[in-house]
Amino acid sequence: MKRPSTGADLNRLRRMNALSALNAVRTAGMPLTLSALAQRTGLSRASAEDLAGELFEQGWVVDVPPAAGTVGRPARRLRFRAEAGHVVGLDVGLHKVLAVVADLAGGVLGSARVGVQPETGRADRLSAADAAVRRALEDAGIGVEQLWSVGAGTTGVVDEDGTVVLSTLAAEWTGAPLGRHLGNVCAGPVAVDNDSRLAALAEHRRGAAIGVDDVVYVHAGLQVSGALIIGGRLHRGFSGAAAEIGSLPVAAWSTATRHLTECPAVPDETPVEEAAAAVLAAARRGDAEAILAVDRFSSDLSVGAATMVATLDPEVVVLGGGVARSADVLLPRLESELASMCVRVPELRPSPLGDECVALGAVHLALDRVDAALFGPQGELRPPGVPTREAG
Amino acid sequence: MKRPSTGADLNRLRRMNALSALNAVRTAGMPLTLSALAQRTGLSRASAEDLAGELFEQGWVVDVPPAAGTVGRPARRLRFRAEAGHVVGLDVGLHKVLAVVADLAGGVLGSARVGVQPETGRADRLSAADAAVRRALEDAGIGVEQLWSVGAGTTGVVDEDGTVVLSTLAAEWTGAPLGRHLGNVCAGPVAVDNDSRLAALAEHRRGAAIGVDDVVYVHAGLQVSGALIIGGRLHRGFSGAAAEIGSLPVAAWSTATRHLTECPAVPDETPVEEAAAAVLAAARRGDAEAILAVDRFSSDLSVGAATMVATLDPEVVVLGGGVARSADVLLPRLESELASMCVRVPELRPSPLGDECVALGAVHLALDRVDAALFGPQGELRPPGVPTREAG
Repeated sequence: MKRPSTGADLNRLRRMNALSALNAVRTAGMPLTLSALAQRTGLSRASAEDLAGELFEQGWVVDVPPAAGTVGRPARRLRFRAEAGHVVGLDVGLHKVLAVVADLAGGVLGSARVGVQPETGRADRLSAADAAVRRALEDAGIGVEQLWSVGAGTTGVVDEDGTVVLSTLAAEWTGAPLGRHLGNVCAGPVAVDNDSRLAALAEHRRGAAIGVDDVVYVHAGLQVSGALIIGGRLHRGFSGAAAEIGSLPVAAWSTATRHLTECPAVPDETPVEEAAAAVLAAARRGDAEAILAVDRFSSDLSVGAATMVATLDPEVVVLGGGVARSADVLLPRLESELASMCVRVPELRPSPLGDECVALGAVHLALDRVDAALFGPQGELRPPGVPTREAG
Repeated sequence: MKRPSTGADLNRLRRMNALSALNAVRTAGMPLTLSALAQRTGLSRASAEDLAGELFEQGWVVDVPPAAGTVGRPARRLRFRAEAGHVVGLDVGLHKVLAVVADLAGGVLGSARVGVQPETGRADRLSAADAAVRRALEDAGIGVEQLWSVGAGTTGVVDEDGTVVLSTLAAEWTGAPLGRHLGNVCAGPVAVDNDSRLAALAEHRRGAAIGVDDVVYVHAGLQVSGALIIGGRLHRGFSGAAAEIGSLPVAAWSTATRHLTECPAVPDETPVEEAAAAVLAAARRGDAEAILAVDRFSSDLSVGAATMVATLDPEVVVLGGGVARSADVLLPRLESELASMCVRVPELRPSPLGDECVALGAVHLALDRVDAALFGPQGELRPPGVPTREAG
């Protein structure tokens, strides 16, 4: 005896199919014809056409005009309307606050930078974050009511609520309620994470590790830190302490950069944030003291990197932070050190993202929250935190 | 304009719902009423009753008789028919081959053990595996035609086809086509993996780490090795070399057990496989030389464990292998060593699985292949590799 499916079953099916169609258009990377949409979703062409009409009415998709010179009746082609919503990605760092405004496809529409110092107080750093968001929205020509989500990366250990549990580099920043503060900026979801972790996320989504499932990320600027992508997702660890390699005495990460900044090859009067670059440049020119310093730095960096590589056997290791610009000097040294310590040396790649890496990672953290609201278990075809939406 | 769903959409929905219902009954851990089945699948009660009838006809579920003394008309309760199919889990080791026969819920129905030696030749080790499977099936009273899948764990690096790419401990075993050989035993899927990895899988499914998503597993018998569960799944690494911590010079895993086996506290004439246990027992009694040896062993074990813990920040570390029986002596030492090297010390747990751990992990590897055939993207409600099935 077979009973027909009930109305509740069919409504559920319809919503799942609409989300599946939206996701197909959004992730296609190119405009889709209705036939292509049907193929990617496994739906009939009639169902695909029906759902496309629904998504169009709701402002999620638009038709792409046929190419000039098209002969005959062209097939309808749809693209995701990335401009339907916007997010902000924030980097709240020791020396700068950087805000980036992006659309739902991660395209950057504007940015703003506000200088701070390690000794800047908590309230002033939070004000700098507000100012950076405001100016970035102005730069992008976007109103705050068009903002669906905010993501932020910051120095230190960050808990689920976006509170900085521990900042060893900026004492006053420990305890800062960054997540709650940003909740005043945006009605949609707010998410905060450690800055190295978001830099790794940016590499995975738009940098050196696109499409790579397992990545060890090593960030070396004034400090050395690490982060992991496992199975295509950020790995935070049970207590948020994943990739805290600096705690291993054998790794020597906490003192690694001193080999560079305290090297005699650093010219007098060089600001501390430029010392490492100066030594790496001197090593490239063949300066003996600089070469010794770079060898020691590489060796310390490698022992910590090797512990993560031997544990995970990742496809790729990405080197980010200020030293990524000197990849030609560093990567051959890292490669030979890893070869002496690991069964297999992964491909080593320098970050192409420069000093926007954390803010860009924060953009993707925010976009992931938008996705979760749209496509998660409770997913609805409705923007997060926005009661009514502008017409399509 | 809304078009009705097509027949193809409805067939797809029906198959998805049937798989969802089967999975709900199978993973419930107790018999389910039709109302509970509807709740767990999100289906209407009418749909749940319809699907339950279909699964019953196909032999996947059976009714559980009402408890004695039930008053009134009892609700129908269904359980998964675990006895519908069977798998074998094999441990092809240096000193033994162990085969375990289990039902689809992982319940052990029989086993058999055949002794081998590290120097046993390849053909003889494969014959020992055949003999162990045959005797285990006899022990369980199961015919080979009722076997749906075979899983096996063995020493060394194993490739996707189940060929032993490298065995450092049994030279003749390198190149052994274990997967292909087992394909002659069973028409269903065959899967082979490294033995430590399968021991970790067994801990996750039925041992010390049930329900724990992120686990570092440290196996210490005559050798020390590691394995990882990340996000609830075995982590193999890009080239299958995950958790190959022995390659790190700082870890000293390759020589760690010598502190025990070469300790003066080992009584004369003690076989090598019992030496470690003897020293651990002597340390428990307060023997000074044994305590020194155990301290050194623990220290070497900990440095390697700490590299994995600092990388992953797992919820739990499981200590398996022969030394797990001496957890009272070892775990306090491991805990204090890890505390000096990691931001957070995970909970440390000894394995309860004894020397069947690899074979039991192989049972679950085989059951996962059965699941993939049933519930995967191409999933069908049909047993893998079995053209027709006995009546329900």
